[in-house]
Amino acid sequence: MTAPPPRSAAPDVPAEAAAARDAALEVVTTLREAGHAAFFAGGCVRDALLGLAPSDFDVATDAPPDRVAGLFRRTQAVGAAFGVVLVHQKRGKRRVATEVATFRTDGVYTDGRRPASVSFATAEEDAARRDFTCNGLFWDPLHGQPGGAGDPRADAEGVIDFVGGRADLAAGLLRAIGDPAARFAEDHLRLLRLVRFAARFGFAVEPATEAAARAAAPRVAGVAAERVGDEVAKMLSAAPPAPAAAAALLSRLGLADRVLGPGQGGPPAALAALGPAPLATAVAALALDRAGSPAAASGLIRTRWAPALSLPNAVADASTGVLDALHALRGWGTLGVAARKRLASMPTFRDGPLALLRAVDPQAAAAVASDVAALAGDGVGLAPPPLLDGRALIAAGLRPGPAFRTMLDAAYDAQLEGRVSSPGDALEVAEASVSA
Amino acid sequence: MTAPPPRSAAPDVPAEAAAARDAALEVVTTLREAGHAAFFAGGCVRDALLGLAPSDFDVATDAPPDRVAGLFRRTQAVGAAFGVVLVHQKRGKRRVATEVATFRTDGVYTDGRRPASVSFATAEEDAARRDFTCNGLFWDPLHGQPGGAGDPRADAEGVIDFVGGRADLAAGLLRAIGDPAARFAEDHLRLLRLVRFAARFGFAVEPATEAAARAAAPRVAGVAAERVGDEVAKMLSAAPPAPAAAAALLSRLGLADRVLGPGQGGPPAALAALGPAPLATAVAALALDRAGSPAAASGLIRTRWAPALSLPNAVADASTGVLDALHALRGWGTLGVAARKRLASMPTFRDGPLALLRAVDPQAAAAVASDVAALAGDGVGLAPPPLLDGRALIAAGLRPGPAFRTMLDAAYDAQLEGRVSSPGDALEVAEASVSA
Repeated sequence: MTAPPPRSAAPDVPAEAAAARDAALEVVTTLREAGHAAFFAGGCVRDALLGLAPSDFDVATDAPPDRVAGLFRRTQAVGAAFGVVLVHQKRGKRRVATEVATFRTDGVYTDGRRPASVSFATAEEDAARRDFTCNGLFWDPLHGQPGGAGDPRADAEGVIDFVGGRADLAAGLLRAIGDPAARFAEDHLRLLRLVRFAARFGFAVEPATEAAARAAAPRVAGVAAERVGDEVAKMLSAAPPAPAAAAALLSRLGLADRVLGPGQGGPPAALAALGPAPLATAVAALALDRAGSPAAASGLIRTRWAPALSLPNAVADASTGVLDALHALRGWGTLGVAARKRLASMPTFRDGPLALLRAVDPQAAAAVASDVAALAGDGVGLAPPPLLDGRALIAAGLRPGPAFRTMLDAAYDAQLEGRVSSPGDALEVAEASVSA
Repeated sequence: MTAPPPRSAAPDVPAEAAAARDAALEVVTTLREAGHAAFFAGGCVRDALLGLAPSDFDVATDAPPDRVAGLFRRTQAVGAAFGVVLVHQKRGKRRVATEVATFRTDGVYTDGRRPASVSFATAEEDAARRDFTCNGLFWDPLHGQPGGAGDPRADAEGVIDFVGGRADLAAGLLRAIGDPAARFAEDHLRLLRLVRFAARFGFAVEPATEAAARAAAPRVAGVAAERVGDEVAKMLSAAPPAPAAAAALLSRLGLADRVLGPGQGGPPAALAALGPAPLATAVAALALDRAGSPAAASGLIRTRWAPALSLPNAVADASTGVLDALHALRGWGTLGVAARKRLASMPTFRDGPLALLRAVDPQAAAAVASDVAALAGDGVGLAPPPLLDGRALIAAGLRPGPAFRTMLDAAYDAQLEGRVSSPGDALEVAEASVSA
């Protein structure tokens, strides 16, 4: 079943989307009044038909880019070779940019990534060059309006469907437009887009599309690391159960080992049990499913995913931090008070390692959560400001050096454990820690 | 008192630092064997003297950049105009880059940001061009080694101090090197570095330095947004109580209104009560302290901080999401089951809005946490996969349109509230939601 993204608690996110929609509607209206064909295109049509809330509203038109640029006050050519123009508008206090693409056909793809040339074309040809049928729909926002400005090819709801996308949406099928083998050969990234869309919408993959994807799977190795990483991040950022569905589909299509490195072939149990979580936690869960243990999962992220997925350092560090803490959480009962407090003071403790522990061992997670609440209320707290610092050691006549760190650690441990509560007592512990 | 950064649970973070230190030591050794002066310089010396764990180890030398490049196999000129060379080494499986800067004096600063020219110089001149005394120290890692390779200017611990930095470290004083007014005039960003270092180490600001900073405060308006934002992010990413100390110091020096926009002048209560938290939560806490209410704080972030601090969209969205959810959490008791479950399913719920609520109203936060645990265990769960999706509506013969979203929302609400537990019942609720 489809998992809609969690409804945001932010009241102005719908306002952002409404402004984007209004801006795109104005672009369509202006183009139509100037005698051009112009529709909403692609993802926003698909999402609206599925009852999801689109965030971007792209426009497709038969007006060539210089004509588009001439009809609006502020425009910017972003993909000049592809005929894409950004139209900037101000809606109230918001600045909104609408992407306007001229109908085109793509020439031969010579590099498995993008066409060597494009030619401007009809709406039907434009639909035919897109990747999957659910992404090849147009919608006429002026349909059914008084004055009869609507496009005659639109159906009863205003949808213009040259590729059978409506039927596939209704059937829950992800299907390549035209010859599936050719579509994957043109742009190997489509292998991962297939997985992402199928997982996000809970769709089945149409058999010929699946066969072509399996056959093309080895080609995914040639896709640039940052493009692969971007797709994987999108898969893992979707609301559950889409991330686990994506992981399972990657395996089924023979993509998992190529994209994620050789790994355990079983179902993605940790990812499947994880609730809505930050990206770093989802990355950690998938790595755990692939590698088996927290330590092996950390190694997988550092040695393979960081380079092969062009994972930003912040994400790699955060996800290995989650795994290392998970490893420590599994031995929670053997840790002293100071070690437990230090773990629980990670800035992302609750939505990171504790959430992952909840996925793999809910009872252990409940025990940890209850112990953390007790530690936080013990009068000292989880992360009090230290009683002692390096300056105090210097003031006490000690010579700075590597021993300072040992001394400060010992003093802070004693503080966390409630054994000292004054700088003087902390200093005694610090001095004792190196005189032994 | 100093707050050391929370000790990471990641066992390989110390290994990273150890590799960086070993690599820098090898660079120093090679330079010295080639007849050059070469020391550890700047932040790593300061941190080591304070008993903190340095992460970067920079080297300063009298060897000119082309000489440095000639002594190592893999080098890269990164600040050619400033004489900075990266030396790349492999330590085990890690790639480590050591920054090697040639001793220099800076020419006249014409743009309040960087010198128009630099000249290579002596170690003493190099120390004198740095910003604060605690950052102007060198350390000789070969000091006291057999063979007498140590530098004769080093003190008993191997520290080479041309600027009085050791005494200021011992006294807990942040002091500009040389003429404070001139140092701030050279580079206005130093106003914010002053705040960050003083807050992080719990240091007092030396009176002449503070007077010069107050006088120069208006100049901070000319610093590029991304440089300001980077400093503010570092202030807020430090372990408590440094973020609140930084906010208070910004106010005292007359920088707060200029950097953060006009705001409430009181102490940063929410930030001060916040435990270790992700950056977005700290940003939300500071905005709440400045603006007074969650709604005003969201507005402050969107309309002022996003542009003036060049805040990444992801951080702005995450922090306004925290504030909007905080607003909703304050009315927790008035929300229905579905609304509470949707709130609690935010991926960053626990380290975001719940952590901020804990800072501003601990009792309310405890009540919410206990209610969330109950909701999670009610048999339905916080975020179950939806029973109904757009495809099921189409299959039931319904025409896609804007009503789909209303219908799916109603069905999911009913599911979260335990009123329906089958797709058939969910469909009935969906249909009833639009037939009324």
